Amino acid sequence: MAINFKNFLLSQSKKSKIGDFQDLEHVDGVAISVLSANLYKDPRDDLVLFYFRDGANYASVYTQNKIISENLKWNLSLNTSTIKALLVNTKNANVFTGKLGYRGVVQIAEELSKGLTKKMVEDEETKNSVASKEVLFGSTGVIGEKFPTEKIKNSIPELIKKIKYTQNKYLWIKAALGIMTTDLVPKLAMEECKIGNSEVKIYGIAKGSGMIFPNMATTLGYIFTDANLTSGILKKLLKKNIETTFNAITCDGDTSTNDMVSFFATKKAKHPKIKGINDEKLHQFDKSLHSVLLNLAKRVAADGEGASKFVSVNVMNSKTFLEAKRIAFSIANSPLVKTALAGEDPNWGRVLMAIGKANVNLNLEKLSINFGNIKIIEKGQLYSNYQEIEVAEYMRGEKIDININLNIGNKNFTAYTMDFTKKYIEINADYRN
Amino acid sequence: MAINFKNFLLSQSKKSKIGDFQDLEHVDGVAISVLSANLYKDPRDDLVLFYFRDGANYASVYTQNKIISENLKWNLSLNTSTIKALLVNTKNANVFTGKLGYRGVVQIAEELSKGLTKKMVEDEETKNSVASKEVLFGSTGVIGEKFPTEKIKNSIPELIKKIKYTQNKYLWIKAALGIMTTDLVPKLAMEECKIGNSEVKIYGIAKGSGMIFPNMATTLGYIFTDANLTSGILKKLLKKNIETTFNAITCDGDTSTNDMVSFFATKKAKHPKIKGINDEKLHQFDKSLHSVLLNLAKRVAADGEGASKFVSVNVMNSKTFLEAKRIAFSIANSPLVKTALAGEDPNWGRVLMAIGKANVNLNLEKLSINFGNIKIIEKGQLYSNYQEIEVAEYMRGEKIDININLNIGNKNFTAYTMDFTKKYIEINADYRN
Repeated sequence: MAINFKNFLLSQSKKSKIGDFQDLEHVDGVAISVLSANLYKDPRDDLVLFYFRDGANYASVYTQNKIISENLKWNLSLNTSTIKALLVNTKNANVFTGKLGYRGVVQIAEELSKGLTKKMVEDEETKNSVASKEVLFGSTGVIGEKFPTEKIKNSIPELIKKIKYTQNKYLWIKAALGIMTTDLVPKLAMEECKIGNSEVKIYGIAKGSGMIFPNMATTLGYIFTDANLTSGILKKLLKKNIETTFNAITCDGDTSTNDMVSFFATKKAKHPKIKGINDEKLHQFDKSLHSVLLNLAKRVAADGEGASKFVSVNVMNSKTFLEAKRIAFSIANSPLVKTALAGEDPNWGRVLMAIGKANVNLNLEKLSINFGNIKIIEKGQLYSNYQEIEVAEYMRGEKIDININLNIGNKNFTAYTMDFTKKYIEINADYRN
Repeated sequence: MAINFKNFLLSQSKKSKIGDFQDLEHVDGVAISVLSANLYKDPRDDLVLFYFRDGANYASVYTQNKIISENLKWNLSLNTSTIKALLVNTKNANVFTGKLGYRGVVQIAEELSKGLTKKMVEDEETKNSVASKEVLFGSTGVIGEKFPTEKIKNSIPELIKKIKYTQNKYLWIKAALGIMTTDLVPKLAMEECKIGNSEVKIYGIAKGSGMIFPNMATTLGYIFTDANLTSGILKKLLKKNIETTFNAITCDGDTSTNDMVSFFATKKAKHPKIKGINDEKLHQFDKSLHSVLLNLAKRVAADGEGASKFVSVNVMNSKTFLEAKRIAFSIANSPLVKTALAGEDPNWGRVLMAIGKANVNLNLEKLSINFGNIKIIEKGQLYSNYQEIEVAEYMRGEKIDININLNIGNKNFTAYTMDFTKKYIEINADYRN
């Protein structure tokens, strides 16, 4: 049942070599350290530190859930546009842990501040230091369990000792593995592009929706570039591109308390100064960022729990962007549509139902539905040459495109999701039985 | 895995005898006929006629889906407050069947009009007739398949011949069976109450969410009373009571193209005239109608596909009714919560997540969560004596109450649903494999 991830990854990459991460190398200004703080019963890497010795401009977007982790509360309290470190732990989400959970974050930030400042002295960079308020946090895992402050705090000296100033593909993959919960594969993406005449890199890692009791799907995405961009520009670029990438995926319509995507710029690249996001020199960079985000987002959807198919729902020619989005998610979140996909049933009646329940005014006589290139409904009528057997054959593939053309405007939206299999129920219900 | 329906039905009834429908008898002014029009490959009853010889006042509520069946389009075109017949077919939803589908409904209405008027002549009720525009339709089944107009039309003479003017419990059950698709049990409910000094009856049947490719969950509910109430009053009573009954259930958050609940009053009971819904004499009737609707609605939720548990989500002391409803449905529709229920996992973290994602402003320090009577969160803190083993034991039951107290207002809403089992995926995905 499992998606052939190697093929999938290859298919997502323009350059075939990127598919298996062969090209991943160093991003100037980023240092990485990964270890096990023994947060899991069976030890595995569970603590990942990104260290920006010379600081990084940054921007973040967070979950819209009204209940959020203590780590995100800390992040939201920061009043800085430059960050020196990002620490991500798995196993414990640090949600509903009250004042004790928040105090844990404060203590760890202080420990990191002390340790990293000491390291700077040792490295003879005496001009510099790391303030606790320059540390950003990510977390994913169990809700409501006591946050393992001591275990994490006690691991900090070793974590700092292990800092590697130069990355290779193995270190990037180690970092991507270290933030996973029950994802089946690590998720990485990279693009290279030019600002002016200077080559810049955009690297990203993400984790998705593995959930095992009592975990919860948390999407974490971290994007790194050596470009020299202000936090204000990073923020605008991230907001602009997140809407059609990370905000376009759904596994089950649930929203975690810990979702977070951050974008860090180490300012190491030598390129002409960029004044705003409308600067023409940023055009290629903007596109490349979108590719990295979309690539990661698709990997998260494709690795949704129990997924056997990767599904794109393309809604075209809607009156408004919002209406296209509403219809796309109505289909992508419908358990009836998703179980039909798992069953490889060409059940377009359920797609029709999901279009109708999205509460968007339609002109049914203009509606067309294709599965892949196969016409099903054309101008509101069942296509005259419709052959169910042909669609049934198409449904056996691992990559399904549901194409809806409303023909009443010019706005489009694509949602990415996966099918809903028995494996999903197993992962989420039967874990302890 | 299946819910013990006998116990469930008994538990839903105040008078134990109603539990197994022993008390169902005749409602004056209602006639019933049920037969097989051979719409299914393996013949079963698939056509149910309710005939009101002397007319019935009526009110209906329909699906909010923008794509609706041709039958509902016909119903919405009627300009009458009195109805003479209701015809319900299963197997074919008559959705996306275009002009041909609509013409089918017109032809069947005309056939019924002719046949029933002829029967009136034979019954020597020459003063009376049935106009085609006095026929209401319900349907459920396949979307987009040619509507079997001929088969249904050709069955009408036999259907009329079989009309029974007096019902007993067997006939009511036969009618409830005749409108089922893949429901496991027929759904009936009854109440008796007084308007003034006159006894009146409120009987109801419903079908729920059995879905097998390429069917779709359709909720149909038909309520019959011998009370003498205007269509205007019926409409107000139905709208008032539907919100916390049929509109409070969810199986998977999907909305059918054919949903319909209708309320018929045969005007046979002799009671003082009722001028409006605020008439004090209507108080008992109003409560009894709510009981019948709630009883049927709960049966639909409990019989949701694959259900092994019946779940009530009670949200209390919200600022507004709408916010309470939003939180209740956010929990009741969450696949993560529903799979945890199937797995009998006391995974309150997922309930918390679903509360947070409902986009309602909360005061977390006032939030309390109980499963049944077991305290889990009190005033925003994990309950000091919380014992997971105790909750795990509770989760093994067939009836689960999730109680959320927001403590920030005085509005309440209860949503009813079932758990999300592997059986659900089987029913909806694997049917043809």
